[in-house]
Order: sequence, then structure tokens, then C-alpha cells
Amino acid sequence: MPARYRSFRSSLPWLILLLQAAFILLFYFFISDGQVPVPSNAYSAFQDVNHMLVFGFGFFFLFLRRYGFSSTGFNLLIIALGVQCSVLVEDLLYFLLQRPVQDGQRRIARAMVTMTAVVISTGAVLGKANPVQLILMAVVEITAFHLSRGMNKVFLQLPDNSSLRQVHLFGAYFGLAVSSRFSEPPPRSEKSRRTPKSDLFSMLGTLFLWVSWPSLSYGLAVAGGGRGISNTYFALAVSTVAAFVLSALTTKDGKFHMSHIQSAVLAGGVAVGYAAQSIEHPWIAMILGLLASLVTILGSYCLQRCLNPALKIHDTSGVHFTFGLPAVLGGLAQVVLLVI
Amino acid sequence: MPARYRSFRSSLPWLILLLQAAFILLFYFFISDGQVPVPSNAYSAFQDVNHMLVFGFGFFFLFLRRYGFSSTGFNLLIIALGVQCSVLVEDLLYFLLQRPVQDGQRRIARAMVTMTAVVISTGAVLGKANPVQLILMAVVEITAFHLSRGMNKVFLQLPDNSSLRQVHLFGAYFGLAVSSRFSEPPPRSEKSRRTPKSDLFSMLGTLFLWVSWPSLSYGLAVAGGGRGISNTYFALAVSTVAAFVLSALTTKDGKFHMSHIQSAVLAGGVAVGYAAQSIEHPWIAMILGLLASLVTILGSYCLQRCLNPALKIHDTSGVHFTFGLPAVLGGLAQVVLLVI
Amino acid sequence: MPARYRSFRSSLPWLILLLQAAFILLFYFFISDGQVPVPSNAYSAFQDVNHMLVFGFGFFFLFLRRYGFSSTGFNLLIIALGVQCSVLVEDLLYFLLQRPVQDGQRRIARAMVTMTAVVISTGAVLGKANPVQLILMAVVEITAFHLSRGMNKVFLQLPDNSSLRQVHLFGAYFGLAVSSRFSEPPPRSEKSRRTPKSDLFSMLGTLFLWVSWPSLSYGLAVAGGGRGISNTYFALAVSTVAAFVLSALTTKDGKFHMSHIQSAVLAGGVAVGYAAQSIEHPWIAMILGLLASLVTILGSYCLQRCLNPALKIHDTSGVHFTFGLPAVLGGLAQVVLLVI
Repeated sequence: MPARYRSFRSSLPWLILLLQAAFILLFYFFISDGQVPVPSNAYSAFQDVNHMLVFGFGFFFLFLRRYGFSSTGFNLLIIALGVQCSVLVEDLLYFLLQRPVQDGQRRIARAMVTMTAVVISTGAVLGKANPVQLILMAVVEITAFHLSRGMNKVFLQLPDNSSLRQVHLFGAYFGLAVSSRFSEPPPRSEKSRRTPKSDLFSMLGTLFLWVSWPSLSYGLAVAGGGRGISNTYFALAVSTVAAFVLSALTTKDGKFHMSHIQSAVLAGGVAVGYAAQSIEHPWIAMILGLLASLVTILGSYCLQRCLNPALKIHDTSGVHFTFGLPAVLGGLAQVVLLVI
Repeated sequence: MPARYRSFRSSLPWLILLLQAAFILLFYFFISDGQVPVPSNAYSAFQDVNHMLVFGFGFFFLFLRRYGFSSTGFNLLIIALGVQCSVLVEDLLYFLLQRPVQDGQRRIARAMVTMTAVVISTGAVLGKANPVQLILMAVVEITAFHLSRGMNKVFLQLPDNSSLRQVHLFGAYFGLAVSSRFSEPPPRSEKSRRTPKSDLFSMLGTLFLWVSWPSLSYGLAVAGGGRGISNTYFALAVSTVAAFVLSALTTKDGKFHMSHIQSAVLAGGVAVGYAAQSIEHPWIAMILGLLASLVTILGSYCLQRCLNPALKIHDTSGVHFTFGLPAVLGGLAQVVLLVI
Repeated sequence: MPARYRSFRSSLPWLILLLQAAFILLFYFFISDGQVPVPSNAYSAFQDVNHMLVFGFGFFFLFLRRYGFSSTGFNLLIIALGVQCSVLVEDLLYFLLQRPVQDGQRRIARAMVTMTAVVISTGAVLGKANPVQLILMAVVEITAFHLSRGMNKVFLQLPDNSSLRQVHLFGAYFGLAVSSRFSEPPPRSEKSRRTPKSDLFSMLGTLFLWVSWPSLSYGLAVAGGGRGISNTYFALAVSTVAAFVLSALTTKDGKFHMSHIQSAVLAGGVAVGYAAQSIEHPWIAMILGLLASLVTILGSYCLQRCLNPALKIHDTSGVHFTFGLPAVLGGLAQVVLLVI
């Protein structure tokens, strides 16, 4: 239906403009900003999360040849809209819960962590959803995430930072739920072709996320944070080693496959995210990293062959096994650690 | 004239060597360095400006296929020479104005901010000027910029950091003035061809500049700086959204054009640069970001079609509408805000 | 021998897994971690060294077309294994020397600096050593480096940070020694082909290392560090200028050659590494940068034509003249400065 497509194309910019105008109006009425001096470590963490979100994830999902600009460009558009939306929703929630408003930079840093969930979700529908659907998904997902955080706060008495740690879990399963509404593209189509060049850019994004991951733990830590960083680092290191081992064991020719490695090197960081501060010995973080990598690589086989066809889910970037399963493992690990 | 070209080629390294030897001599006689402990936030800002200048701008201008190495390589050469030159000129000026000398790291950070102007100017003459012309331009521009800062200080009593905020304005119009001395290359020549690959590297540079832009505000802030960062961030976010909207509205097929987006996503950051600290509400910064993006995209149409042919200016990278017009808008906005 | 090759391929993952299991066991018995609050500047330095090692060096050695993934991927694998190994070896040494254990983050930062030596060594055998050989080399090199540091501490009473500055020297010559055990690949083979694309990625790594280099000095500094950073910056700037000059002078057509520039722009940073804190005037650092660049470019001619064929060394990435010679120069310079 080219006529309908053309009318959609022509209405897209007006929809975005309307949303942006609404955000500016809401900012005008509701958002004020105190001139609070920012501690230097808050600034470092702000910068690192910013780099991770825009630069790291922008290139991480850049492995499909056709979606080079879509991936980096739409990623930027959705982050720019979503951060404003998240600041508004969170301030509304703080207002309803009658809590004090926080200063501007911390607010943006928290909004960016929330956007990590949205960016992960977009990975599941990459190349299937059009920009309007992506933007709608972002708005709904941000609202749902803040509501779930609000309920955690009110009913479970969880501290703020703790509930922020659920971003990867929330993002992966929200993305999968949305992804099940889209039809699967024909296999081996031109759209899902990879090229070595786009793989290299994707590797660039992966390496950037890898080196920035300990910052997420640092940014979320209330104070100190030394143990969180070293635990995250060791978990990442072990899951990287395990990713190479398992990639070579599960392929017929015994070679390392870049797609395995790109999904599994981050698994340790995702899994340890929940409990990074409370793990007392590095070896526990290391075992967790090993298990996370195992779960990711086995998941990439089982899910793509058994579960996804049965549930009619087509998960373009594999966010289920890259972020979903390690986050489930991390959640279980924290429960076990709390019980012990 | 190949003979003349060969003689120019062979004299180029000697010219650079002469300049470098002169700089070392001048450093020997004039520059001393106190062992001052550096506050940790100064160090973060130093690193961010350094990354922005060499890495971000190096790849930002890498969209012409022929100038991959020229862009990143000459950028590095000019920064390496220019930072030394800027430190020398500024110290000479401080000496003449009888002000105390500052410590090494802050001095280099200020010199790097100054070099932003030069790097923007080189964008206007990219592919037209030869290395000798670029180096001469850098030396003249640094001297002119510091003289204008000195006059601001003596006659207008402006503080140091405030006058540093004029880098984008100064760089863009200096570059345009220089660019008018060069003849325009034939259209559709092999030299001005873009490729998807070089576009991706350019996008890499753009994203890197985008995430680092709030640092510039942080680095220039005297103390605190929390409000400056959040204002800059919101201005960047709104100008990004507006860039996508306007790009789709102004093209016939309703698609997003990467060249528009690359110029306009930074417009908000440039415009808000002057007044980032003094804007009291985020919505003002957001409106400024929206206007900056509008000015940039409209400017890219009007200037390239009407003004540039009339004035015989060929602005290779479009620095006039990317950095010049938003900076003018930012200057006007600051005047309006001060009056109110 | 394809059969033997297949058996090697199939044993590789088990070897890595065995090593990883041993590391986790040793961590379980020996490594504990105090919950020490981390000063903010230590965190910045940790992040910068992390970025430099994984991201910078990962792309720095990515100039051979065939080794795109090998370079970035194996780099990550070796760093992930090596950091654990280095933490274990250093703690064992601290235990034997009866010194107090340090907190987790500083320990990892020191392990990453140690890994710089290993990464430089892998540059010398890039494309010749298989993964098992690389991993064995890493384990032996880490042990040897920590033993040499221990001896420096016990016999020469050198402080910890000072002995860490020898990484480039140690890495380059260890790599050369290992490289002499491998046979030289046939010249002009498909394996040693460069492409403009891989050159651009390599330039990306070079620029990233260039901007992060002052951080290494900052991270190693005991306190303050202002002078170290500005000295490193000026040395890097002058060696960059000298690299362009010498590259144009030594080639027949007077053009800049990217391979020269990539090796020589970092020479100043390597040379000034030893003495960055103790150099009192910037001009001394600048002269050192000039000499380092000269040594590197002349070395790249002499070594490749005279010395390497005689000693039957094939140094794939030219680590001898990129890191070895400038480090020797830096060591000599420090001795001269201490005598004066």
C-alpha cells in the first residue's frame, strides 16, 4: 500500500513535533531546577552512562548491513525523546509520592539508566518496527518501568537505586513481548544480511560497552562503590573467557564466532548488576560471570531453535539471551545470597 | 605546475620543523610550570575536551571519501602545533596584562578550547587548503582569537571563561572569511564524493561530540556547573528531535537525511553554550535548542542556494550553518536574557 | 598437518577452561577484598586505563586486513585472562614480601597497566602465534614482569609506581624475544595486506591512545600529577609534529605515510613516561618528544632493513621502534636528569 505508506511518512514528523511540543509545555509547568553543586564523582558517572547509552548501544546493534544509520540515528532520536519523557514521568511520580525533587544532573543520569531498558527493547524489534511504533513503545515502556519502580518503593520498600538495577531484565522481556506482535521477516532476506564491515562497527560498540560497564555499577552505587567495580570487572572478565571457550565448543569447526562473543562477553556484567555491591568475595562474582556466559550461549541455541518458533517470537538482536537470561540469573543469585 | 608543486612538497616539512623549533625555543625562554596539585574535576574536564577535540572532530569531518586521512591526520597535526602556539600567545598576553600565570593543565585545557575554533575553521576549507595554508591559518587565527579575548577583558571587563565561549562563533566566521579566498571546486567532482562507509565514521564523530558536549560546559564552569550540564543536555536533546523532524519535512521523500542530522543535532549545544550557566529553567534551554535546530536546517537550504553563490563562498563542511548561525542565536539569546 | 591442526583446535577451549578454573580456585583461596571507599580520581584513572587497554590497543593493531577480529577479539580474551593472572601473581608476591594487601580497584588498575606490556608483545607476533601460544606468552610474561618489579623493589628500593613505568620497555623487548622464535611469513602474502578501511580503524585506535596517554601518567602519579600530565601532553604534541615532518622527509614523494605517523605520534608519550613527574620545564619534555619521534622513524628504517633480517626477527606491528626504542630513550633521559 504505497499511498498509505506515503501518508504515514508525511505524518511522522508532525507526530514527533507534537510530542516534543507537549514535553516542552510540561517542562514549563512542572520542572524546575535547583542550582546544586555537583560532586565530581557524580559527573564522571553521568558522562560514562551518557557515553554508554548513545555511543556504545548505538554501535552495538549495528550488525545488520541495512540498518547502519537506522541503528545509530534512531537510537539517538529515541534517547533524546525518551530522556525528556522519563524525567517528566519520574517527577510526576515523585510529586504523587510526595518526595523531594532532586537536582538536574542526577535526574538526567537516572533517566538515562531508564533509557537503557528502552534501547535494549528496540534491539528485539530492530528492522521490524517503524519509527512511530518505536517512539510509542518508548513512551509506554518508560511509564511502565517507572510505575513498577514506584510499586517496588511503596510495597516492597526497595531503595531507588536497587530498583534501577532491573533495567536489563525489564528491557529484554518488554522487548520480547512487543516483538511477538510483529511478523517474522523471511529468512535469508537482504534485510538481515551481515557484512564484515558492520560487524567491525558492532565490535566497536561491544568493546565500548564492555569497558564502560563497571561505570554503571559506580553510577548506581550510593557511596564508595569500590567493591562493586572490582566485582563487576571480574565477572566481565570471566564471562569473556567463558564466551570464547563455549563459542569454540559449540561450533562444528571449533572457531570463535563473533556473534556468540558479542552476546556473551557482557553477560557477566548483566548478571552481577543486581548484587555487585553485596558480593563479598571476587570468586563469587567470577562464578556468576561463568554461569551467565553459559546461560547466554546455551540460550542462544535453545531459544532460537525451540522456544522462539513455538512462541512465534523473532528476536532480531537476541536480547532475550544477551540481556534477559543473565538478568534472571543475577536476580536468582541475589535471592540466594540474601538467604545465605 | 608540477615542478612548483614538487618544490612546495619538499619545503613543507622544513616549514613545520622551523615552526616547531621556534616554539621549543620560546617555551625555553618564557614558559615555566608550577607543581600545582590538580583538582579531580579539572582533570575530568581536561580529558573530555581532549577527547572531543582530537577524536570527535577528527571523525566529524570525515565524510568526504578522499579526505579520510587528511581529516584525521591533519587535524592531529594542527592541534599538536596549535596547542603549543596558543599556550605561548596566551602567556605572552597574560604577561603584557600583568596577570598571574596559571598551572600547566588548566593552561592546556584553555588552549584546547581555543583550538576548537581553528578545527571548525578547517572544516570550511577542507579539501581546498594545503597543509601550509592550514598551519598559517591556525597561527593567525589563534593570535586573533587571543587578541579579541584580551580586548574583551580590558574593555568589556568580561571574565575569562565567558570570552572562551565565543569559540564556535569565531571559528565559523573566521573559516568562512578564509574560505572566500579559495576558488570553488567543480561540482560533482571525485573529490567531494561521499560514501556510506565514510558517512558511518562521520556519524561516529558526531555521536562522540554529542555525548561530550555537556563536558565543554562543565569544563568552562567556574564552580558547580550542575545547571550548565542539565541545560546543555536538554538543549541537545530537543535540537536532536527537531533535526529529525525538520529533515523529514524539508526533503521531498520524507526521509531522514544524515547530512542534516549531523549538522543540526549539535546546534542546541552550540546555541546554549553562552548562557548555559545563567538559564534558570530547563524549558528555556529546550526552546533555544528547538530554534537552533530550525536555524541550522533552514540555513543549510538558504545559504547553500542563495548566499554562498552570491558571496562566492564554498563552505565544504557547512560550518556556517552548523556552528555559525546557532552561535549567533545563542549570543542574541544571552543578550535577551540579560535584558530581562 | 590438518589432523594435528584439528586436534589442536579441539583442545584449545579445554586449555582455556582449565586455566580459568584454576584462576577461580586460586581466587577462592587467596584473594579477599576490603570494602574500601574509592577516591574519585582513582576511579577516573581506572576507567581511562581500561578504555586505553581494551578499546585503544584493540583497534591500534587492527591494520592487517585478515586480523580484524583476531586483533580486537583475542586482545579482549588475553586481557580478560591476563588481568586475573596478574592480580594473583602480584598478591602472591605481596604475600611473600609481607606487604599489606590493597583494595580491589587499585589492584585491577595495576593489573591493567601490567597487561599493557602483554598487549604490546602480542603486537610483535600478530598473525604468527596461535591463541594457545599467545595465552602461554601472557602467563609467562606477567610472571616475569612481576618478578622484575619485585627485584626492583627489594634490591633497588624503587617505589611501586616507578617500576610500573617500565611496561613499554618490557613489553616491546619481551615481544621481540618471542617473535624471534617464529618463522617469518612470506613477503607480500595475503595475510599481511593492509586496506584503507582497516587503516582507518587503526587510526581510530591510534587517536584514542593519543588522547588517553596523559591518563596513564595521571593514574600512575602518587599525588597531584598536574606536572606529569602537562609534560606528557607537550611531549606527545611535539612528537606528533616531528612524526609528520620526518615522514615527509624520509619518503621519496614527500607525502605523509600513515604507518610512520601511527608509530611515531605515541613515541613522545612513551619516552616521557619514566620522568613525566620529575621534569621541571615543559621544553625538556618537548625535546624528549622530538628525539623520541626521530628515534622511532629512523628505527623503522634501520631495523626493518638491517637489524631484523640479520637477527631473523619479524616484528609484525613494529613494536621495537614504536615502543621499545622510545622507552630506551626515556630511560636514558631519566638517568641523565637524575645525574644533573
